[in-house]
Amino acid sequence: MSAARVDGRKADQLRPVTLTRKWSIHPEGSVLVEFGQTKVLCTASVTEGVPRWLRGSGKGWVTAEYAMLPRATNTRGDRESVKGKVGGRTQEISRLIGRALRAVVDTKALGENTIIVDCDVLQADGGTRTAAITGAYVALQDAVTWMRDKKLIKASKDPLTGSVSAVSVGIIDGVPMLDLCYEEDVRAETDMNVVCTADGKFVEVQGTAEGAPFDRAELDALLDLAAGGCKELASHQVKALLS
Amino acid sequence: MSAARVDGRKADQLRPVTLTRKWSIHPEGSVLVEFGQTKVLCTASVTEGVPRWLRGSGKGWVTAEYAMLPRATNTRGDRESVKGKVGGRTQEISRLIGRALRAVVDTKALGENTIIVDCDVLQADGGTRTAAITGAYVALQDAVTWMRDKKLIKASKDPLTGSVSAVSVGIIDGVPMLDLCYEEDVRAETDMNVVCTADGKFVEVQGTAEGAPFDRAELDALLDLAAGGCKELASHQVKALLS
Amino acid sequence: MSAARVDGRKADQLRPVTLTRKWSIHPEGSVLVEFGQTKVLCTASVTEGVPRWLRGSGKGWVTAEYAMLPRATNTRGDRESVKGKVGGRTQEISRLIGRALRAVVDTKALGENTIIVDCDVLQADGGTRTAAITGAYVALQDAVTWMRDKKLIKASKDPLTGSVSAVSVGIIDGVPMLDLCYEEDVRAETDMNVVCTADGKFVEVQGTAEGAPFDRAELDALLDLAAGGCKELASHQVKALLS
Amino acid sequence: MSAARVDGRKADQLRPVTLTRKWSIHPEGSVLVEFGQTKVLCTASVTEGVPRWLRGSGKGWVTAEYAMLPRATNTRGDRESVKGKVGGRTQEISRLIGRALRAVVDTKALGENTIIVDCDVLQADGGTRTAAITGAYVALQDAVTWMRDKKLIKASKDPLTGSVSAVSVGIIDGVPMLDLCYEEDVRAETDMNVVCTADGKFVEVQGTAEGAPFDRAELDALLDLAAGGCKELASHQVKALLS
Amino acid sequence: MSAARVDGRKADQLRPVTLTRKWSIHPEGSVLVEFGQTKVLCTASVTEGVPRWLRGSGKGWVTAEYAMLPRATNTRGDRESVKGKVGGRTQEISRLIGRALRAVVDTKALGENTIIVDCDVLQADGGTRTAAITGAYVALQDAVTWMRDKKLIKASKDPLTGSVSAVSVGIIDGVPMLDLCYEEDVRAETDMNVVCTADGKFVEVQGTAEGAPFDRAELDALLDLAAGGCKELASHQVKALLS
Amino acid sequence: MSAARVDGRKADQLRPVTLTRKWSIHPEGSVLVEFGQTKVLCTASVTEGVPRWLRGSGKGWVTAEYAMLPRATNTRGDRESVKGKVGGRTQEISRLIGRALRAVVDTKALGENTIIVDCDVLQADGGTRTAAITGAYVALQDAVTWMRDKKLIKASKDPLTGSVSAVSVGIIDGVPMLDLCYEEDVRAETDMNVVCTADGKFVEVQGTAEGAPFDRAELDALLDLAAGGCKELASHQVKALLS
Repeated sequence: MSAARVDGRKADQLRPVTLTRKWSIHPEGSVLVEFGQTKVLCTASVTEGVPRWLRGSGKGWVTAEYAMLPRATNTRGDRESVKGKVGGRTQEISRLIGRALRAVVDTKALGENTIIVDCDVLQADGGTRTAAITGAYVALQDAVTWMRDKKLIKASKDPLTGSVSAVSVGIIDGVPMLDLCYEEDVRAETDMNVVCTADGKFVEVQGTAEGAPFDRAELDALLDLAAGGCKELASHQVKALLS
Repeated sequence: MSAARVDGRKADQLRPVTLTRKWSIHPEGSVLVEFGQTKVLCTASVTEGVPRWLRGSGKGWVTAEYAMLPRATNTRGDRESVKGKVGGRTQEISRLIGRALRAVVDTKALGENTIIVDCDVLQADGGTRTAAITGAYVALQDAVTWMRDKKLIKASKDPLTGSVSAVSVGIIDGVPMLDLCYEEDVRAETDMNVVCTADGKFVEVQGTAEGAPFDRAELDALLDLAAGGCKELASHQVKALLS
Repeated sequence: MSAARVDGRKADQLRPVTLTRKWSIHPEGSVLVEFGQTKVLCTASVTEGVPRWLRGSGKGWVTAEYAMLPRATNTRGDRESVKGKVGGRTQEISRLIGRALRAVVDTKALGENTIIVDCDVLQADGGTRTAAITGAYVALQDAVTWMRDKKLIKASKDPLTGSVSAVSVGIIDGVPMLDLCYEEDVRAETDMNVVCTADGKFVEVQGTAEGAPFDRAELDALLDLAAGGCKELASHQVKALLS
Repeated sequence: MSAARVDGRKADQLRPVTLTRKWSIHPEGSVLVEFGQTKVLCTASVTEGVPRWLRGSGKGWVTAEYAMLPRATNTRGDRESVKGKVGGRTQEISRLIGRALRAVVDTKALGENTIIVDCDVLQADGGTRTAAITGAYVALQDAVTWMRDKKLIKASKDPLTGSVSAVSVGIIDGVPMLDLCYEEDVRAETDMNVVCTADGKFVEVQGTAEGAPFDRAELDALLDLAAGGCKELASHQVKALLS
Repeated sequence: MSAARVDGRKADQLRPVTLTRKWSIHPEGSVLVEFGQTKVLCTASVTEGVPRWLRGSGKGWVTAEYAMLPRATNTRGDRESVKGKVGGRTQEISRLIGRALRAVVDTKALGENTIIVDCDVLQADGGTRTAAITGAYVALQDAVTWMRDKKLIKASKDPLTGSVSAVSVGIIDGVPMLDLCYEEDVRAETDMNVVCTADGKFVEVQGTAEGAPFDRAELDALLDLAAGGCKELASHQVKALLS
Repeated sequence: MSAARVDGRKADQLRPVTLTRKWSIHPEGSVLVEFGQTKVLCTASVTEGVPRWLRGSGKGWVTAEYAMLPRATNTRGDRESVKGKVGGRTQEISRLIGRALRAVVDTKALGENTIIVDCDVLQADGGTRTAAITGAYVALQDAVTWMRDKKLIKASKDPLTGSVSAVSVGIIDGVPMLDLCYEEDVRAETDMNVVCTADGKFVEVQGTAEGAPFDRAELDALLDLAAGGCKELASHQVKALLS
């Protein structure tokens, strides 16, 4: 594990992580998360009521929407609003973030309220979906605290049963590496996004062979690397929430 | 691993698998794949030319589109054509099938030709995306053979570098099980779709905690089960292609 | 009337007709109808309630949606879901099937229930709309029987006041012919689709001059031919429903 | 045939017909057609070039688009532009008008030019599609004359091989009637739209049982009535074009 | 102010203005407004009820929709219904007309009723939005009178607190001119649309430098000219309403 | 002019203005502009080539797209990408920004290149469109400098013929005020957005009576106030570009 990385990191090293809470004045929770040059603004919006299929169930709902500013990337992408539809990649990531957050939400404890977490990528350099999940959890936590302050949920109940963070891993030139930046992501033979809880369990594992298929040993190495990365991210989240 | 299953299968047992080639008269490749009650019609259509971004590259393209008939399921779903947009789940699965197929395609050997594999679910009972991938590979193989017969590709080159099949696995009441039917899928705490090559390597691993997060031991058990199931499916594919 | 046809049929001869009931496990009525190589899956779905404009009227509603799988035809057509809109031809045929079915439905006897009949063309070789109507009626009948079994409608009332079937006719090289296959349809100077009740009355007559305008004598010959074809189709429907 | 009509007409009598040419200053052909209170503005626009599938064929193209102003009817209808899609009825009628016009067009003689005929209903009182066809033909003729003046087509060739007009017929209280106004249209058991050439041949026959199915004798009576009405409309067209 | 104009008018002279009330039979108010060759059909439709955000408020709503027939202009424009979306210019003008009308509406006096004013440009020669506003006011007045006759609003209340009219002004070759026709509009360096009440106050001022930016003196001259034009239009409105 | 303002400002005082250049790493020009709590990210993207209607003209193109993040405002707004269409307000503002920038662009000097300026509102507190224009100009200037460095434009030509900035003004409780924050904007009887060049000329004047119509004296006072504000903003732009 001693291959040189673009930015001089070690194979199992995260990029500098920053979680800036209260970045915006309006949302109930708002976090600017940075994984190196990747910057995602995560805002959590609380509204009373739930989607139709949950009405009367006593349960709340948490969902997420992911998007990129048109020039968050090196080349400008057309706006999905102008194209008139949300692309497949965008929908896939929005669904992933929503599932990841709901894995640690007790919807009964939320009551019939909805929290929408918007993750807007202001600048992209690889790992936007994993940064988004990591920041979204913190924004969600702040929104839940706001709800408790407003007596929208009972003090005795905690709608959050744990925390989630996420990281990408990949194999480059045969070496498993943690938290790929864009340049690495493009070169990776295998690319995996892993969502973990703070206690090291898996919420989502999505591995794709971009080049040659990967074997079980490679898969195992990637899972080890990701588990370690998520653990570190979880401590960043704790630190941010305590500050 | 002795828990009773809805249909009396053992935990590591596939449902009856059928691969009916030449189901339709028009397409270059067409396969009706059945995993138990799940029936997917996979048709492979060859067209000359490639999408814009590949023109002049000498490379071909393989892509897939997945869809469900409105009453393939127990409750009728609205048509996506009538709603005017393709849903997130549909796009996600279409992208997955396309990636899985491209993992075994040498696009250079295809020349500047495109193969679109349509996977239309005629009847759904769980595992539609994994059945689709398994059937799509066979339809793709038939389309490639058709191209060779028509001299659209050189006899000396094989655009297919291997085969892919896919299967779902999940944990139900703590027991890892292979090839979930719909009733099982709904009850699964963890749900994973795995795409493998015939030589046992991984092309895609997508695991999601539907209920509680899963630990590494559970993940390992699911991967073992899936690898075994894909091996068996690969032999079904070989048998179908030789018949 | 002795002109040779592509498939050796006589001018007034239908292609082989098959009506396979209970083709799918989920729908309340499901029929695979085949007119030669044309295969249409007709499924009838019962839901409680009616569209807004009928609420409180005590009347039910029957409607239809027609679509083609992308590779049902010789050349692959783009999916309407991907294009984001339903084409004019598709809408026109959906509306035709719905009107044809409603011609034999007593909506009062249905109660405030809706039956949607989906007609999905799995393989096309001319006459898809007429095959669809012929199969849709049988699926509708099965759905009505299911409703009676479930006590959703009163035993004393029959929501179906008759039966409908449909057939295409056309003039090729000056000869009126029944039930055109695709190759004939393309060559026809005049093309007509006729929907009849079992007692020989007309529900819909749609004739179009594809080449030269047609005179009254030709129109009369086509109507005679169509009436005969529908009569024969009606007996196929009876036989299928009795089996 | 002596039943009283809403407006005192005889059963086989057209409403007052007006064809005002050059109603607008911009289009190459423009006609305000009135069938009683029904008013449709038909404009024919000539553009060089043809749709992609005709390029290089040496043939031209004629197509039509039909639409209603939102308050052309008694109750305001939502704009299709605002709804974001063209309704089924609108598409069906646009396609009908296009087919009717093309039945008398020699596309070779047009050269690679396109004529789009827009039929916008300014006020509706039944028979909008038949008025549209009748007016569209006159606008088309004016556009063709304009093209000849501009030397866009050769003087020796006539792209119009005949004329078309259209009329609705229906059975009300058992009596076949010509050219239904809205109030009659709503009450009709059977409704038929017929497009004829000036020499009395049929271009399109579309009959629908709105109530009870109709028998052959009724169909024959309607066809007779329509043929007579179209003949009269053809003479209105000639008169307008000569004026 | 003596520069020659295309049509011989003086710089501060309106084109001939016509306001034809009751142009259509169906709408509660309908006016064909003509500013020279510009013809806009304005229809006011009354419906009971209000948009969701006003329910229970006791207030009514007035809104407007502007559109152009495809061949209202010199070159045919694609239909927005066919394109599937309403263009920016169309929306901008619809919003402008709605705001202009609401400036003289007392929504309380309307009660929970909605008036939609449709402004459809039948023929365009510059100034379509200002003609639309000028005609829309008259149609609105007629619809309000209709409501009073139908007792939908109390006789003691007048929902209209004043009148509005609008005119375009522009600078051509350095000379400020009133009510530009299309040919002038294209050449104008600065283009301004002004909406005034009958008592000479401003409701909307929208000035744009098409060529060089304009200075305060030019702006002042344009405002003077527009105020004079609106005053004259207001007297046309009064005359039309009294006739 | 001594009325108390929400934030203690004087009636003719701007909020604190910040223009942070190079806020993002990818775009050719990027500026975070802040007018008090309003924050807009303006990025200028250079691409070779021009829209179809300009090809071969030797001229370039500058256009703008404005959008708001869903929770930029106090209440979350639905994403336009999810709704499938761009709203009227968004389009209106995008068009305004584009026109404002083009007023100081010599498209000939740009060559056949396109600059798209995206203005994404990260946080809204009134005046988002005027802040966007003010920041967009600076981003545009940086993009032009980048083009010169890359030799995409000749050193001898300056595509920018001046600078533009914009500010809102309004009348609150009878007092004309500069640069309204959201709370003031809601209360304003009259609201005007003014775009000026650095030499004090007008590029765009858009005034709307939200409450009572305004008279000429009020309009004059607002124009004076806006001209002063723009002058100050122009000096902020110069300072930012020199830093």
